Amino acid sequence: MKGSADQSEVSATEENKETDMSVWAAHVLTLYPDMFPGPLGQSLAGRGLEEGAWNLQVTNIRDYSVGKHHTVDDSPFGGGAGMVMRPDVLGNAIDAAKAASGGDKRLMYFSPRGRIMDQALMRELTAGPGVILVCGRFEGIDQRVLEARDVEEVSLGDFILSGGEIAALAMLDAVVRLLPGVTGNQASLSEESFETGLLEYPHYTRPAIWEDRAVPEVLLSGHHKKIKEWRQRSSEELTKQRRADLWERWSDENLK
Amino acid sequence: MKGSADQSEVSATEENKETDMSVWAAHVLTLYPDMFPGPLGQSLAGRGLEEGAWNLQVTNIRDYSVGKHHTVDDSPFGGGAGMVMRPDVLGNAIDAAKAASGGDKRLMYFSPRGRIMDQALMRELTAGPGVILVCGRFEGIDQRVLEARDVEEVSLGDFILSGGEIAALAMLDAVVRLLPGVTGNQASLSEESFETGLLEYPHYTRPAIWEDRAVPEVLLSGHHKKIKEWRQRSSEELTKQRRADLWERWSDENLK
Repeated sequence: MKGSADQSEVSATEENKETDMSVWAAHVLTLYPDMFPGPLGQSLAGRGLEEGAWNLQVTNIRDYSVGKHHTVDDSPFGGGAGMVMRPDVLGNAIDAAKAASGGDKRLMYFSPRGRIMDQALMRELTAGPGVILVCGRFEGIDQRVLEARDVEEVSLGDFILSGGEIAALAMLDAVVRLLPGVTGNQASLSEESFETGLLEYPHYTRPAIWEDRAVPEVLLSGHHKKIKEWRQRSSEELTKQRRADLWERWSDENLK
Repeated sequence: MKGSADQSEVSATEENKETDMSVWAAHVLTLYPDMFPGPLGQSLAGRGLEEGAWNLQVTNIRDYSVGKHHTVDDSPFGGGAGMVMRPDVLGNAIDAAKAASGGDKRLMYFSPRGRIMDQALMRELTAGPGVILVCGRFEGIDQRVLEARDVEEVSLGDFILSGGEIAALAMLDAVVRLLPGVTGNQASLSEESFETGLLEYPHYTRPAIWEDRAVPEVLLSGHHKKIKEWRQRSSEELTKQRRADLWERWSDENLK
């Protein structure tokens, strides 16, 4: 895929209610709607959004706030630091999003307690109609919403973010690039790390000699079979060295 | 931590060369400088940036392009799909960033082949002076740069992004909130998932009854010892159910 210098911002607005039901669609619930599409608006995902390869809707959870103070959060029962997002506020926001999107999308909340995202999840999501993504802030959200609305919890990894928004951006970037019509060269996708079950082999480009470092000779040989073998061996060695977990799974499946 | 409705954008520019060497600093190398601070500019990290609790410098790798066509990438030796970032371009960009920052910062590249980021890494990073973060695009970067400049590879997780930028945003968000003076209530940090080795217990807030669902009675009891025990037990059960890996480590260390 050739990089694009196009850095124009793509806007996703609340007015964008006329969703084309045939394209993959994300509906994000957040207290920071201006974070979307944000970095996604630039490069591939942004172009895909402009060209209608996918659809993004963003709802400000504050639109569902309660009382004259427009409250969205409150102190935790039982005491403790931080604030917790109210179940009534979030429940109403979720219900509205479900009603607007036909109710067939997966409903997910970003939380360190969730299933850790991986390429298999991204592939699963591209196969469906889209997602409703709940981005938490503060200490967390009321547990009853998760249970009452049967929300899937997913995690970006074993670390703590200040909110779910950047996790949502990561998921959308990873999913959208797999959608048809977004990444120009679909061939480049199939050789990537995780698609084969191995980490990807090292890459080299011009100049052939840089700071006295030459590229591996076989890559200049023009001998396609040998190049393929070298890349496969490099992938296997790298995976064995760095990721015993992936290596075990791959060798179980491929070295019988 | 109370959420802020302040969504003003904080700009980090190339002119910002007069780095205060005493605060934690990030220097990002990217082909998409406009993605920074992006979502970080809003909420806590952005306020911290405005108030000088940390420092952000962003360099466009294209400033180090070669030739009259301002090339930054080229076809991979040995053939294949995609483009690879040139070693001379990236090497020069890294050298300039190192020279500008005193050379004591950790130099990291986001790649699916790297060490998977976790809270321990975030804590390590907050203890140091800062980071130089290389964000790749295209198929990858020339392997020789990683070796010649002794670049650490880190990974956001086992999935593929269109570039390193969102991984950098995730790392910066996770690190910056741990810096002194950024998160108002440092107490709320120590009870989070991963800090104790367990997943966090469930949260509840008003209303006490919502859709016929009541909050657990113990949380309304005012009995601090029992609340603490309930939370601890909930954390342990949740971790045991959802994350055998964390549970094994925690119980090895705590249940002897």
